[in-house]
Amino acid sequence: MTRLLGIDPGSRRTGWGIIDASGSRMQHVAHGVLAPPAALPLAERLETIFAGLEGVIERWQPEQAAIEQVFSARGVRSALVLGQARGVALLALQRAGLEIGEYAPAAIKLAVAGHGRAGKEQLATMAGRLLGTRLQGASDDATDALAIAICHAHGQQRERLVRRARSGGN
Amino acid sequence: MTRLLGIDPGSRRTGWGIIDASGSRMQHVAHGVLAPPAALPLAERLETIFAGLEGVIERWQPEQAAIEQVFSARGVRSALVLGQARGVALLALQRAGLEIGEYAPAAIKLAVAGHGRAGKEQLATMAGRLLGTRLQGASDDATDALAIAICHAHGQQRERLVRRARSGGN
Repeated sequence: MTRLLGIDPGSRRTGWGIIDASGSRMQHVAHGVLAPPAALPLAERLETIFAGLEGVIERWQPEQAAIEQVFSARGVRSALVLGQARGVALLALQRAGLEIGEYAPAAIKLAVAGHGRAGKEQLATMAGRLLGTRLQGASDDATDALAIAICHAHGQQRERLVRRARSGGN
Repeated sequence: MTRLLGIDPGSRRTGWGIIDASGSRMQHVAHGVLAPPAALPLAERLETIFAGLEGVIERWQPEQAAIEQVFSARGVRSALVLGQARGVALLALQRAGLEIGEYAPAAIKLAVAGHGRAGKEQLATMAGRLLGTRLQGASDDATDALAIAICHAHGQQRERLVRRARSGGN
């Protein structure tokens, strides 16, 4: 059993989700959103995200982490803002010594919903089903974070299967 | 006398510069560049920048800090990468409890060279003159960081003069 932390970074709202995974079996553990007050100066908002993630890691003790790969944004300005939040999130994972997986948005949707173009609601329904819980009340940010963790768990399982096949079943 | 830290963040090279300022008088103290090996994973590069800035702050004990405001980049991809480095730089300043000034590129050039469209070489020459040192050998990143610190010192001096004028010369 491996405990995984998924993160969906954003300067306004950073979602996080914790799951336990063992082979193809997965279980929801916890999720939440870090939403620093918009009135705070940028540096303080970034510190709130960093300290919040440190707190999540301290509380739930994940062994590995996963974060969305970002290639696009609504424009240069949005990309700068998003990059800043993603930077401090990565730093929190790195400082905690966690192995970090990065996944493209389409790969996350594929892992959770079976195709790369799933919508928000479909993703929430499927993620809840895979994790044995209902996520209808959860925020999009937390649901996305759980979906990223599920994607990481899938990748791990695939790696294990490939290793087993290569070593002749041992 | 106030000790200032200027930072020019970048994912490949983050420049830093320390100056002492007292009214309109300024003096060069130190400068350098943090350049994490490009082969390192992103999270490790970000940690190298963060830890490096923590080291600079510990060594030189600045009282205030200044960083460039970024509005533009060569594209969304560059903006994301730059944002990540800027995010961890801001976090290092915030965690050290430093007051942070943010300045637009044109304001920095104006403060150092007298007009908003100065080139790299002109900026280096003028920054060196203002700081009583020669910066011809310094890297662009370190020179830019010193220029940002000079801009912050100018702003401080202006504020002081305005306050003095308002209070009738006392």
